[in-house]
Amino acid sequence: MDLHGSFHVYDTTLRDGAQQEGLNLSVADKLSIAQQLDGLGVGYIEGGWPGANPKDTEFFRRAAQELDLRHARLAAFGATRRAGVRAADDPMVAALRDSGAGVVTLVAKSHDRHVELALRTTLEENLAMVRDTVSHLRAEGQQVFLDAEHFFDGYRANRDYALEVLRTAYDAGAEVVALCDTNGGMLPGWVSDVVHDVVETTGVRVGIHCHNDTGCAVANTLAAVEAGATHVQGCINGYGERTGNADLVTVVANLELKLDRQVLPAGLLRDATRIAHAVAEVTNVPPASRQPYVGTSAFAHKAGLHASAIKVDPNLYQHMDPVGVGNDMRLLVSDMAGRASIELKGRELGFDLDAGTPEGKDLVTRITDRVKVLESRGYTFEAADASFELLLLEEVEGARPSYFEVESWRVITDSKPAEEALSEATVKLRAAGVRYVVTGEGNGPVNALDQALRAAIGQAFPEVAKFELIDYKVRILDQGHGTDAITRVLIETTDGVSSWVTVGVGANVIEASWGALVDGLTFGLRRQGL
Amino acid sequence: MDLHGSFHVYDTTLRDGAQQEGLNLSVADKLSIAQQLDGLGVGYIEGGWPGANPKDTEFFRRAAQELDLRHARLAAFGATRRAGVRAADDPMVAALRDSGAGVVTLVAKSHDRHVELALRTTLEENLAMVRDTVSHLRAEGQQVFLDAEHFFDGYRANRDYALEVLRTAYDAGAEVVALCDTNGGMLPGWVSDVVHDVVETTGVRVGIHCHNDTGCAVANTLAAVEAGATHVQGCINGYGERTGNADLVTVVANLELKLDRQVLPAGLLRDATRIAHAVAEVTNVPPASRQPYVGTSAFAHKAGLHASAIKVDPNLYQHMDPVGVGNDMRLLVSDMAGRASIELKGRELGFDLDAGTPEGKDLVTRITDRVKVLESRGYTFEAADASFELLLLEEVEGARPSYFEVESWRVITDSKPAEEALSEATVKLRAAGVRYVVTGEGNGPVNALDQALRAAIGQAFPEVAKFELIDYKVRILDQGHGTDAITRVLIETTDGVSSWVTVGVGANVIEASWGALVDGLTFGLRRQGL
Repeated sequence: MDLHGSFHVYDTTLRDGAQQEGLNLSVADKLSIAQQLDGLGVGYIEGGWPGANPKDTEFFRRAAQELDLRHARLAAFGATRRAGVRAADDPMVAALRDSGAGVVTLVAKSHDRHVELALRTTLEENLAMVRDTVSHLRAEGQQVFLDAEHFFDGYRANRDYALEVLRTAYDAGAEVVALCDTNGGMLPGWVSDVVHDVVETTGVRVGIHCHNDTGCAVANTLAAVEAGATHVQGCINGYGERTGNADLVTVVANLELKLDRQVLPAGLLRDATRIAHAVAEVTNVPPASRQPYVGTSAFAHKAGLHASAIKVDPNLYQHMDPVGVGNDMRLLVSDMAGRASIELKGRELGFDLDAGTPEGKDLVTRITDRVKVLESRGYTFEAADASFELLLLEEVEGARPSYFEVESWRVITDSKPAEEALSEATVKLRAAGVRYVVTGEGNGPVNALDQALRAAIGQAFPEVAKFELIDYKVRILDQGHGTDAITRVLIETTDGVSSWVTVGVGANVIEASWGALVDGLTFGLRRQGL
Repeated sequence: MDLHGSFHVYDTTLRDGAQQEGLNLSVADKLSIAQQLDGLGVGYIEGGWPGANPKDTEFFRRAAQELDLRHARLAAFGATRRAGVRAADDPMVAALRDSGAGVVTLVAKSHDRHVELALRTTLEENLAMVRDTVSHLRAEGQQVFLDAEHFFDGYRANRDYALEVLRTAYDAGAEVVALCDTNGGMLPGWVSDVVHDVVETTGVRVGIHCHNDTGCAVANTLAAVEAGATHVQGCINGYGERTGNADLVTVVANLELKLDRQVLPAGLLRDATRIAHAVAEVTNVPPASRQPYVGTSAFAHKAGLHASAIKVDPNLYQHMDPVGVGNDMRLLVSDMAGRASIELKGRELGFDLDAGTPEGKDLVTRITDRVKVLESRGYTFEAADASFELLLLEEVEGARPSYFEVESWRVITDSKPAEEALSEATVKLRAAGVRYVVTGEGNGPVNALDQALRAAIGQAFPEVAKFELIDYKVRILDQGHGTDAITRVLIETTDGVSSWVTVGVGANVIEASWGALVDGLTFGLRRQGL
């Protein structure tokens, strides 16, 4: 299929997405994200604004040498020439021309008040700036798109002028004019009406660029496509300023899977979940578990009520097969869980619990009962797959895997004036026939316990050196009981390849953490094949 | 306005929202959230499924005694009677009838395959189940709504039957039939077409219940309203199974601010940001900074390009005035709170900070700057009024109220085989000219510290005997850093008459807790007039 032909998928993560609060991308980050986006099969990757900052200039220089793009073309973003100078003489325009990008996306004002208040020039001069800059870059052999900034607000304020900006760009050789809902206040019906009018009145090729301030960025984008837009802009994972840009993955999945329009090379949407998460690793923004299509919760089911029907036909309870976006259905073991969800969960983990035998039925009953008792005491297994698997193993094999026996532990935290509090933990345990007494320090009691525990076990099992604690969550369960309440701790551990979550519960937060730490190490050692 | 009349805002956070992965609400949590939702002015709060689990039964029992609802009515959720029994004889129906809720929302199958595969009954019996259950509850004096589960998929599969379910419920006395996109696969255009058809064909009063699996939950809800739905269901903060339910705050803000339909009591939408964040504190799900309208980033602008134009006219760069939802515009040079909210907050606490004098302006600047610095380090004052008031007092009076000077503290937690872990804390401090060295025990380190601290101070100030710690919340702020992360602790203390919340932050959870404990006692002593 022709990604640069009748329909464009245009990603602006590296430029507009990077406007997000807390998101700071190095040149290496941007190169890595661009390579991932190309793997998804988008047609265009907007790399930044060369000339406006040295980082973006360097990105385009290195991209030409280092990126191996199989699908996407790089686009350089920048403004039309300044008022009162020739396009050929404007150094900012020169930076776009010399960026090495085959495509330039020019941002232009289409809202009359913005021309006057932000650009401080006349409406006529703004049109000349659009005309000259587009013509100049076209003459230099570049493909040109125009981002009509604040278009929808501008259309409301002065429809004739807003349309005139589009016509001017198009007549000068811009291939697409993207209508931008820069402030993000539009709703789908309004977008639809405006796009219809633009297409009918001007005959330009329309693109769409939406922000999520009304929670409708995706719907607004789809409304524009249904009204005739053939170029969609967005950011992977919905990154972007304020509430973010339209999530490009959701837009594309809706176009392909709901509206039967193939817009990526065949089969690539099946990598969407992996790619969305890989990009999140680079941006260091925690992925939203509730993200449509690719979130870790997007196909997770909790209700025990549904589990028996899911066994009959999973499609009764999901809007599509998650394989289509590279995601998975998951069943969450929760306090609403019945036998059916325990069985299904067992199967997911590779245990055929109920093979139709009376022993199998007893086993499922026993596990279901234990889960209910533990959940009534504050445990939760819906996130803690590893603790659940240890429980299954204990019931299936008759004993829990065990690599060490703890004798005792102690942790001390103290604080003196004008010093940071410090924690020190001592753990006494036996592993592989040897007794260890080890002390660890940390900036918190659980950190200190983790250090001591891993140092002790590591002497018997060097594999634990690979383990790292990557997430720690605390939840006080019984509000209204102050520090006296039950505490639940969830810990995520990684061995560098995969990660697993364990749970601990106790009146004492330290004891709860200890339980989760011990489960985490035990599960990890078993996973190493020990 | 009549919240129970021509348009309903119906919140299902406590039932459908609680299906979210990782979200586990205690009865106390649910009561606290219900009170917040009432403060937002929603018309209906679905509290849970009495009879299906003991927690929800207890919620309705305690709600009747403990909640002070000014706007909302409580709704009990439950299923139609089982096949082959009389509604009056079904114990699950009895639990709904006896819940004390004035409204019952019955879930019923409207998709023929679900009737056969999940309910395992005939299409005729399913209609009878709807008819009987609605009639029975109406005869018992309850208001009845019907949730037509899987309606949109059912409509595609068998339109006649899906419509028949609606008609049956309506004829039997259901006031509203809510069309549920249970699997969440719909797009706005499809929802619009179906709702138009339902309204025209059946004449029933239509409600809408959407999930966000295509990223269109809000747009689908609005499309239904524009097609004639007069009852919208959703969850605060978009909580819910998989990708979540329609975010009720976004839906309501769009209806009121974009579509000019007043659906909450006048003025209450201005509390939306505060309430959305307060609920997030209870659920312990970190608020999404990019959440439309109420997210901390929703009106945040990266400075530079836009800054000067924003000064000329902020409305050029925002789709609405953030005051309308109780949010703030922010320029992201540094993090956080604006002068206006500091002034407002000060006034709320009885301090007229900026009386128009230059000194007043300086004071507000100084406090705003300190809050910014503290918030960048992880503090939050939104929930911790008492810590904020101590900070104000320090700036207004030149010194923080102080009743004791701490010399040092230490807490030890240890565990021996087959024993519960125990904690012991020693605190050394001076109060009223005397040095105290006191040791306290507890079932957790913070509990032990609290015991020791109050025992020591209590010798100088007997008033502290009245104080009790009634809530303790921990949040890990830096996900992805394991036990090494920054921790924020919120503590609520009572003197038997009123209660107050304080905050502490630190790399060490014990140190963070200590800060909040000290603030809590200091604030309490000042409140005693000392």
